[in-house]
Amino acid sequence: MKVLVTGGAGFVGSRAVGRLLGLGHEVCAVDDLSLGREENLAGAAALGPFELVKMDVRSSELEGLFARFRPDRVWHLAANSDISKGTSEPKTDLERTFLTTYHVVDVMRRTGVRELVFSSTSAIYGDAPLDLPETHGPLEPISLYGAAKLAAEAYVSAYAHLFGISAWVFRFPNVVGPNLTHGAIFDFVRRLSRDKTRLEVLGDGTQTKPYLDVDDLLDAILLAVERPATPVATYNVAGEGMTSVKVIAERVREALGHPEAAITYGKESRGWPGDVPRFSYDTTKIRALGWNPRRTSDEAVFASISAEVERCRRSS
Amino acid sequence: MKVLVTGGAGFVGSRAVGRLLGLGHEVCAVDDLSLGREENLAGAAALGPFELVKMDVRSSELEGLFARFRPDRVWHLAANSDISKGTSEPKTDLERTFLTTYHVVDVMRRTGVRELVFSSTSAIYGDAPLDLPETHGPLEPISLYGAAKLAAEAYVSAYAHLFGISAWVFRFPNVVGPNLTHGAIFDFVRRLSRDKTRLEVLGDGTQTKPYLDVDDLLDAILLAVERPATPVATYNVAGEGMTSVKVIAERVREALGHPEAAITYGKESRGWPGDVPRFSYDTTKIRALGWNPRRTSDEAVFASISAEVERCRRSS
Repeated sequence: MKVLVTGGAGFVGSRAVGRLLGLGHEVCAVDDLSLGREENLAGAAALGPFELVKMDVRSSELEGLFARFRPDRVWHLAANSDISKGTSEPKTDLERTFLTTYHVVDVMRRTGVRELVFSSTSAIYGDAPLDLPETHGPLEPISLYGAAKLAAEAYVSAYAHLFGISAWVFRFPNVVGPNLTHGAIFDFVRRLSRDKTRLEVLGDGTQTKPYLDVDDLLDAILLAVERPATPVATYNVAGEGMTSVKVIAERVREALGHPEAAITYGKESRGWPGDVPRFSYDTTKIRALGWNPRRTSDEAVFASISAEVERCRRSS
Repeated sequence: MKVLVTGGAGFVGSRAVGRLLGLGHEVCAVDDLSLGREENLAGAAALGPFELVKMDVRSSELEGLFARFRPDRVWHLAANSDISKGTSEPKTDLERTFLTTYHVVDVMRRTGVRELVFSSTSAIYGDAPLDLPETHGPLEPISLYGAAKLAAEAYVSAYAHLFGISAWVFRFPNVVGPNLTHGAIFDFVRRLSRDKTRLEVLGDGTQTKPYLDVDDLLDAILLAVERPATPVATYNVAGEGMTSVKVIAERVREALGHPEAAITYGKESRGWPGDVPRFSYDTTKIRALGWNPRRTSDEAVFASISAEVERCRRSS
């Protein structure tokens, strides 16, 4: 199968490219390299037929690329992944999270591409009660990232129903693993490497969320796309347990070998406006397909911290 | 209170302007007059302090208007109201239904306006089962109009939570009354007036939906905004019963006095791609506030047909 992966040089995207090539697919990664990095894909060409195209997916050239590559399926992962930035500059998520999706599904319509994997987010639930299933409503996102992803889901649904597209929608939790581009682990490792005496944490450290290893996430997606979407199939995806920001900060301090560093916390329960301080959702639907994540939330976090610390050491 | 009404020259908007002026508010209507008509507001100035500004609400001049008029509350009603057109030209709803909303809430943020009434739609539910409450999910719109309105709801929610805005969101059914700008009644009266021998109906005529009189709708809104939104309050709004397209077609034929006209139906249960052929939702929440619509769906439709036939006669 020919698979086009938008955001293919990003954290999840580059890992997805490797997995897809490993399964024997032909892969075209599209990325504007604003958050993604070419080095994340350094080993890709050795795994199978692969190309990386540097392009903003909102570009008018995307249609030409679709016409040339003729993908059977699109994995649309391109987005602004920096949730807190969305609040200070509202256009960021509008343009990079919502309008990218609009443009991708519209190019799919115009070029007759019929299968879409879409990366949505737990942030669409906003401050909803814990442990809700996919059937929960109304959805009240509290961040512009969550709003842009819900807006994108709305368009994915209508395009699927109107234009014969099958769409698998995955609401991601906090995803971790090697080659992070953003998030608490990424930030903490960098900040504590720069100033070994202290680590300042946004929020009071009690923010607690489910973290998922990127390979477990990709297992879930690759399993779910074996079932028909008729035409939209939406899945919450998360592993066992949740991890607090305090645990992450302390583990980063330990892993970097600076046990004397002072960790200072803010006063707010939210790390930033739009942050959901405590979240979990019901994952019965994806588990019913037989998905069994190998790592708990804590295990995924600890492994990701180790990988991030190792990467920081190599680059310094 | 100073109220700014976007889409204020439209069908619902112009009626809202009259009601708000009647309640003693100062009203600024903004409309690009693409669907709205100045004549709908002919009597407004006599009712109280009123101005009409001809402007696309996506214009960069909107912020200046907000800064000058300084509304206490915005009723954002501007949208593309032609659902079937959205499918043939996907950009229509993106630009006129979603991006208008994005721009309005962003100008509210920038100018410190704190209260928003937003007109959403039953179309966000797509082909969902009948009689669902507001708490239903996942929402899978099947039209680009429904997608754009759900996308707009997502942004209204995030802006409300992030920027101190109170938002009342009303999911409208098919709304009817005097001065229609679109819809089955509007189309049928015009078409049968032009060719008195036949009326061609899109779809097989079995499409059946709740219709609501515009004054009953405005009663619901004016009642609900008396309660805090904390910060988002979402209401399904519909009256008693539903009305089929076949009943509308036959009533129009009768009202125009052409009983001999042949009504021809299509073969599809949907009137057009994205049409939801049979729909009703749970309105317990708005009724619990004490709202009692005066007209049933059939009564609202019949009154609207009479008004539309009368308007057609006057203009010919």
